[in-house]
Amino acid sequence: MTSGKHKIKDIGLSDAGKDRVDWARANMPILRALKERLAKEQPFKGHKIGICLHVEAKTGVWLDTLMAGGARIAITGSPGTTQDDTAAYLVRDMGVEVFAWRDETFAEHMENAERVLDARPSLIADNGGDLHYLLSSQDKFRELSRSLQGATEETTTGANRLRETLPSFTFPTIIINDTMAKRIVENRYGVGISVVDGIMRTTNIMLGGKAVLVIGYGYCGQGVAQRLRGLGARVTVVDHEPMVQLEAHLEGFNTGTLEACIGGADIIVTVTGRDGVLQPDHYKQMRDGVIVCNAGQNASELSAIELYDMAQDVRILRPDIEQLTLDGGKKIFLLARGNLINLAGGDGNPIEVMDLGLALQTLSLECLALRSETLECKPQTVPQDIERATTRAALEAWVG
Amino acid sequence: MTSGKHKIKDIGLSDAGKDRVDWARANMPILRALKERLAKEQPFKGHKIGICLHVEAKTGVWLDTLMAGGARIAITGSPGTTQDDTAAYLVRDMGVEVFAWRDETFAEHMENAERVLDARPSLIADNGGDLHYLLSSQDKFRELSRSLQGATEETTTGANRLRETLPSFTFPTIIINDTMAKRIVENRYGVGISVVDGIMRTTNIMLGGKAVLVIGYGYCGQGVAQRLRGLGARVTVVDHEPMVQLEAHLEGFNTGTLEACIGGADIIVTVTGRDGVLQPDHYKQMRDGVIVCNAGQNASELSAIELYDMAQDVRILRPDIEQLTLDGGKKIFLLARGNLINLAGGDGNPIEVMDLGLALQTLSLECLALRSETLECKPQTVPQDIERATTRAALEAWVG
Amino acid sequence: MTSGKHKIKDIGLSDAGKDRVDWARANMPILRALKERLAKEQPFKGHKIGICLHVEAKTGVWLDTLMAGGARIAITGSPGTTQDDTAAYLVRDMGVEVFAWRDETFAEHMENAERVLDARPSLIADNGGDLHYLLSSQDKFRELSRSLQGATEETTTGANRLRETLPSFTFPTIIINDTMAKRIVENRYGVGISVVDGIMRTTNIMLGGKAVLVIGYGYCGQGVAQRLRGLGARVTVVDHEPMVQLEAHLEGFNTGTLEACIGGADIIVTVTGRDGVLQPDHYKQMRDGVIVCNAGQNASELSAIELYDMAQDVRILRPDIEQLTLDGGKKIFLLARGNLINLAGGDGNPIEVMDLGLALQTLSLECLALRSETLECKPQTVPQDIERATTRAALEAWVG
Amino acid sequence: MTSGKHKIKDIGLSDAGKDRVDWARANMPILRALKERLAKEQPFKGHKIGICLHVEAKTGVWLDTLMAGGARIAITGSPGTTQDDTAAYLVRDMGVEVFAWRDETFAEHMENAERVLDARPSLIADNGGDLHYLLSSQDKFRELSRSLQGATEETTTGANRLRETLPSFTFPTIIINDTMAKRIVENRYGVGISVVDGIMRTTNIMLGGKAVLVIGYGYCGQGVAQRLRGLGARVTVVDHEPMVQLEAHLEGFNTGTLEACIGGADIIVTVTGRDGVLQPDHYKQMRDGVIVCNAGQNASELSAIELYDMAQDVRILRPDIEQLTLDGGKKIFLLARGNLINLAGGDGNPIEVMDLGLALQTLSLECLALRSETLECKPQTVPQDIERATTRAALEAWVG
Repeated sequence: MTSGKHKIKDIGLSDAGKDRVDWARANMPILRALKERLAKEQPFKGHKIGICLHVEAKTGVWLDTLMAGGARIAITGSPGTTQDDTAAYLVRDMGVEVFAWRDETFAEHMENAERVLDARPSLIADNGGDLHYLLSSQDKFRELSRSLQGATEETTTGANRLRETLPSFTFPTIIINDTMAKRIVENRYGVGISVVDGIMRTTNIMLGGKAVLVIGYGYCGQGVAQRLRGLGARVTVVDHEPMVQLEAHLEGFNTGTLEACIGGADIIVTVTGRDGVLQPDHYKQMRDGVIVCNAGQNASELSAIELYDMAQDVRILRPDIEQLTLDGGKKIFLLARGNLINLAGGDGNPIEVMDLGLALQTLSLECLALRSETLECKPQTVPQDIERATTRAALEAWVG
Repeated sequence: MTSGKHKIKDIGLSDAGKDRVDWARANMPILRALKERLAKEQPFKGHKIGICLHVEAKTGVWLDTLMAGGARIAITGSPGTTQDDTAAYLVRDMGVEVFAWRDETFAEHMENAERVLDARPSLIADNGGDLHYLLSSQDKFRELSRSLQGATEETTTGANRLRETLPSFTFPTIIINDTMAKRIVENRYGVGISVVDGIMRTTNIMLGGKAVLVIGYGYCGQGVAQRLRGLGARVTVVDHEPMVQLEAHLEGFNTGTLEACIGGADIIVTVTGRDGVLQPDHYKQMRDGVIVCNAGQNASELSAIELYDMAQDVRILRPDIEQLTLDGGKKIFLLARGNLINLAGGDGNPIEVMDLGLALQTLSLECLALRSETLECKPQTVPQDIERATTRAALEAWVG
Repeated sequence: MTSGKHKIKDIGLSDAGKDRVDWARANMPILRALKERLAKEQPFKGHKIGICLHVEAKTGVWLDTLMAGGARIAITGSPGTTQDDTAAYLVRDMGVEVFAWRDETFAEHMENAERVLDARPSLIADNGGDLHYLLSSQDKFRELSRSLQGATEETTTGANRLRETLPSFTFPTIIINDTMAKRIVENRYGVGISVVDGIMRTTNIMLGGKAVLVIGYGYCGQGVAQRLRGLGARVTVVDHEPMVQLEAHLEGFNTGTLEACIGGADIIVTVTGRDGVLQPDHYKQMRDGVIVCNAGQNASELSAIELYDMAQDVRILRPDIEQLTLDGGKKIFLLARGNLINLAGGDGNPIEVMDLGLALQTLSLECLALRSETLECKPQTVPQDIERATTRAALEAWVG
Repeated sequence: MTSGKHKIKDIGLSDAGKDRVDWARANMPILRALKERLAKEQPFKGHKIGICLHVEAKTGVWLDTLMAGGARIAITGSPGTTQDDTAAYLVRDMGVEVFAWRDETFAEHMENAERVLDARPSLIADNGGDLHYLLSSQDKFRELSRSLQGATEETTTGANRLRETLPSFTFPTIIINDTMAKRIVENRYGVGISVVDGIMRTTNIMLGGKAVLVIGYGYCGQGVAQRLRGLGARVTVVDHEPMVQLEAHLEGFNTGTLEACIGGADIIVTVTGRDGVLQPDHYKQMRDGVIVCNAGQNASELSAIELYDMAQDVRILRPDIEQLTLDGGKKIFLLARGNLINLAGGDGNPIEVMDLGLALQTLSLECLALRSETLECKPQTVPQDIERATTRAALEAWVG
C-alpha cells in the first residue's frame, strides 16, 4: 500500500496496531510525562525528524511524544522487525510518513531510507548509521546534509561505523547508547531478566536446581547470573579478567576456568560480546543433553558455524530448539541458532528499558533543535545534563 | 481421521509430534531411567491401560515408558489441550489407540472417554474423574468395573468428585496429587517459576523494582513470592493466617492487611485457592494502570465476573491482556481473563514437574498391576514406599 | 548476699542490671503491649509464681510484665547463665525473690529451686523440669503440689522428662516449646541468624565465597543455610531424607551425600539434633584447615569426644577456637568445643525470639490463673487460641 | 618493657600472641603462598623496612612473610589498636623491633614513630602519613629521606595528607588503597559483612523483618544493603545521586528521599563518607526506639556532637549502646557513639581482606626494593601488573 507519503503493508491493520501501542503507552510513564511538557513548549515546532528505527509499538509511543512537541515525522524501520499493524496505525491515526513493511529486502530497506531523506528532515534519528551513510555517500543529499541541524545515533555499532567511514561531519551527532543510564538499566537489568524469560519460554524447563554456566560477567553477565540465581539455579561464572572473577567469587557464585567448569553444566549461556568464546573442543567436553545459548553479541560468540559443521545430524525439535548430534551420539541443544536468546522469539527489552532509552533520544533531539550551535560537528556522547535529567525523570516515573 | 483403533485430527502431523516428544524426552530423566527397568521386568505384560490425560508431548514420553513395560494403551485427552501432532505420532509410530483432537466438544470428549473404556482396559489412569464417572454410571461398563485391577486419579478435584459421587468402589484408586513430593515440587517450585514466566511473556514488562502484591502464602504463594523477589521485584505478601504472615515478615517480605497494601501495588497476583479474595471494592482502591492476575484456582478468586460488570469499557490490547476502564477512568489490566496465568498462553508446568508426577503415576500403576490385592477398594493416597522411591529416583536423575 | 527473701551475688550491681533490662525492654514490644492490658485486668492478683528460668535481662522484662498483672515472683536460674547484675536489679528495684548467682554449683542450684517452692507459689513456670521433679519427689512439697493451679514447662526436653518420670499429675502443665510459632520464629529465623553471628564473631573470617556444608535441613538447618547464602557463602546441604534433599536442590543449594560433599568444604555446620552425624572417619576426609562447628543439640552430634581422641595436639588459638592436629599434620579448627555455636560466646537467641516465647508463657500462665479447670491434669500443648493470640500480638508489635 | 631494640608492654604475653597470629596465619593463604616464593628469591635481602601499622595478629603474619624474604623490621602501631600479646610475640619469637603498646598517648605514638626511623630503614610502609610527616619535617631525618629507596602508604586519607602537605618528594610512594582490588574486596564485601556482624553482636537483635535504612549506595553501601537483605531485613536505600538511586531501585530495594524514608526505619546506617548526612532535624523525624549507627567515615557523618547536644539524657545500656532521650521523651539508640560500627567492639575487617591488602603491600615493597628506579619520586597508584598479580594470587588461594 503506497502513496507519496507512505509505503506500508496494509492500512486495514490499524486497529490491532492501536491496541499494541496503547499497551506500550500504559507502561511508558517517562515519555508520558515528557509529552505533557513538550506539548506546552513546542520545541520541535517547524522541524521534520527523519527516523530509522524499528517500527513497533514502543517506537509508536515515542513518535506520539515528538509530535506532541510540534514535530512532523518520516520513518523507516529495519528489515524483519516492522510490525505491519503498528505501521498502519501510525499512518492512519497519527499522520506519520512511514516507509516500512515486515518482509522488505535489504535493497528495499535502503530505498525506504532514501525516501525518509527525500522528505527533507531538519533532524535525524539514526539506528546503525544507514541514514548517515546515505547522507555522506549520495550526491543528491549533499545539500540536505549541510542544512541538517543535527542527528542522533542509537547504537554503539552505528557510532563506530560513523567514526570509521565518514570523512567529515557537517552537523553534530549524539550517540545515545554510550551512557551509564542505558548501560546499567538496559544491560544489567533489562538483559538479565529478558535472557531468563527467553530461556524459559523457549524450553519450558525448570531453572530451580539447574547447574548453569554463565560465561562473561560484565554488566550483562552480572544481570544474567543474578536473575538465574534468583530463580533457584546453581550458577557458575567464568570470566577471563581475574578481578572480575574474584568479584563473582565473593558474590557467592561458583567460579573457575572454562575448562574446569564446562563439563558440569546443564545450561550454558555466553554473554561476553567477543567472538569464539566457545570453540569446537569445548563442545566435546560438555554433558550429553546440555542446553547452549547466547546473550552476547552474535552467534559467532559460541562458534555456531563450526558447531553445525561438527554435527552429524541437526533436528529442529521446537521453534528455536535444535538438537545437534555430535560424533559418538552426544546431543547438544542449541537455542535460537546461537542468536540472542532474549530477542529470538521474545519481545526483546522490557518496555521500561525503551521508555528510558527513548527519553534520552527525545531530550537529545530537543537539545539539537534548540541549541545545536553549542555542540561540535562530530559524533559525541549524550551531554551530561541530559543524562541526569533523564535519570531523574525515570526515578520520578518509577519510584514517585 | 478415524479407524476402530483411533480417532484423531490428521495422521500426517506425526513428524512434528515426534519432534515435540523428543524434546520432552530429553528433559525427563526420571522416566528414562524407569523405562530401562520396566523394559527388563515387564510388569505391565498382558495389561491394557485406559487413560484420560492431556494428549501432549510429556504424556507421550510417559506412554512410551508404560509400553516399554509391556502395556498396551488407549487414551483420550481433555477438550482444548490436545496437541494434534503429538496424537498423530502416538498413533503412527507407537501404535497407541488415541481418541482426541484439539477442538473436540465436551460431548465428543465424553464419547471419546467411552471409546477408551470400550477398549476394555485392565487398569485405569484418570484425570478429573471422567472415566470413573462412566464406569459407575453406565450399565454397559458394570462388568468392566468389576474386572478392573485398579485405577489412578491425577487431581485432587477429581478425587473429591470420586469421594462425593460414587456410591461404592469395586477396585482401588490411588490419588496421585495428594503427595508431599508433588506438593513441594509442583506447587512451590513449579508454580513459582511458571507464574513469573507467564507474567513476563504476557506483558514484556520489567519486574525489577516493581511493587508486587502476592495474596496467599501457601506452597504456591511462597514459590511465587520468592521467585518474583529473585527477579528484583519489591514483594508484599498478604495472608489471612497470622502465623503465615509472621513467617513472610521474618522472611523479609513486606506484609500487612489487604486493605493497607492494595493501593501501593504495580502488580497483584492472587494465589489463595479461595473464591472472592478480591472483591469489587478492592478494585476501587487499586492504582491506575495496575496489572492483575491469578495463579490460584480459577477466575472467581479475583471475582472476574464482577470486575467485568464494573467496567465501563473492555479492550483486548495484547493476547491475554485486557484493559478494563472503571468509573472515573481508572484502568485495570487483567491478564488471561483471570484464569491461571502460568497456564494461559504458556506451556504450563516445567517438564521436570511432570517427569516426577508421571513417575509417581507409573509406580502407582505398577503397584496396581503387581499387588493390587494389598490395597483396599477405595480412593487412597500413594503408598509411602512409592512416594519415597519416586523421590529417590528424582534425586538420582537431577542431582546424580 | 542473702536474706530470707533472696540469695544473690551482690546487690551493689543493680545499676548495671537496670541498664541491661532497659535495653531488652526497648526491643520487647509484645511484652510491652501485654503489660498494659495485664495492668488493667490484674489476672495474677493473689498469685505467686514460682519460676525456674535463666536470670537475665529478657527474663527481667518478663517478670515486670507478670508483676504488672498482679503477680508476686520467686525465681531461680540455671547454673552458668545468671547475670548477677540483673539479679541484683530484680531484688532491689522490683522486689523479686531471687535465688541465683552465676557460679552456683548444681547442688546449689537444686537448693535454690527448693527455695522457690518454699515460697509457696500457686503457679509454676519451669525450665527443664527441675521444679516438677522436686514437687513429685519430695514429701515436703506434696501438699503444695496438690494446691498448685498449674504450671508451664519451657523446653521439649523438660516435657519429655516429665512424661517419662512423673507417676501422676495433680495439675495441668502447658509445654511452651511445642508450638508452630516458636518452632518457626525461633528455629528457622532465630537460630539461622544467631549461628551466622556466632561464626563471624568467633572467627573474624569472611563468609562471602566460602564453601560451607550444612548438615541437616530441618527448620534450623533451613535458617542456617539461607542466612549463610544471604551473606555470600556457597552452601551445600546434606540431609538423609530424600524429600528434604530434593527441596534443598530445587531451592538452589548444592546437595549430595555426606561422603561426596565433605571434602570440598571450608566450613562445616551440623544442625541435625542427632548424635554421631560426624564420625571419626569423616574428619579424615576433610580439608586441611577446615572450620567445624555445631548448631544442633550438643557436641556429640559431631563426635567431639572421639575427635579429641584422634588429635595428636590441641591448641586454643582464640576463645572458642581450638586447633586440633590429626595424624599426618592435618589441622581441624573446632569452634566452641562442639557446643552450640550460636550460644557459645554469643548472646543466644535474638531478643525478639524471647519476646514471643515469653508472651506465650505469659498467656499460658494467665490461662492457668483464670481457667485452669478447663485443662486436664497432665502435660499438654499450648491451647490454640493462645498460640493465635500470641502470633497476632507479634504481628501487631513487629508489623504494626 | 624497653630495650634499645623494642618498647612494648610485657614480653611475658608472647604465648597468647603466638596463638592469635597462628589463627590469622591459618586464614591468610595468599601471604602463605607469597612467603614460599620470597623465601627462595630473597628480594628484601639487605633491607630494613620501617613500618607504621596496627600491631595485631594479621600484621604479624605479614611481617613473617617479609622477613622470610630477607627483610629486617622496625614497627610502630596506632594508638588504641596495639595487641600487647602480639607485640610481645613479635619481639620474642621473631626478633622484630617493636615500639608500641595499647594505651600509648599520641605524643608517645609520635616518639615511637621516630624510633622506627632511628632504626634507619631503607624502605617505609606508612599508615596515615605519620612516618612521611616526620621524614619531611625533622632535620635529623633529612639524610635518611634522601637515602630511602621508596615507601608505601596504606590509606587514601594518608595519601591526601601527603599530597597536600609535603613540599617535594625524594622517593616514590605507592598508595595501596587506590586499587580496584581493595575497593571491591574491602569495601563491598569486607565492610558489608563486618557491618552486619557489628550490628548483631552489639545489639543481639533479629535482623529478619526489620526495616533498615541504608544511606549511601557506593561500594560500601551496596555491600551493607545486600548483606542486610541477605539476612532478611527489609532494606530501603537513599542516595543523592539519581543514577545510583535508580540502580538500587532496579536491584529491588525500596528507595526515596531521606525525608520520605527516615520515619519508617527501625534501624538507620550511614555509609556515605560525607559529613552531616544526618542533621538534627532528621532525628526529630525518626521513630521512637530507632537504632542509629555509622559505617562511613566518622561520627560527624551522623552529626554525633549535635545529637548529644539535643539529648535531655544519655544512658549507656550495653557496651556501645547509648540511649539518648530527646525532647518529648523519644528515645534514639546510638551505637558506638557514631564511630564505625564494624570496627567498634568488633575485629574490623575479615582476615581475608587483610590477606589481600597485605599481599598488595608486599608486592609493592618488593617492587620498590628491586626496581624503584622505574618509578617517579611522588605518590602514585599501585602499578597495574602488581594489582593483577595480587588478584591472581587471591584467586589461586581462595578458588584454587
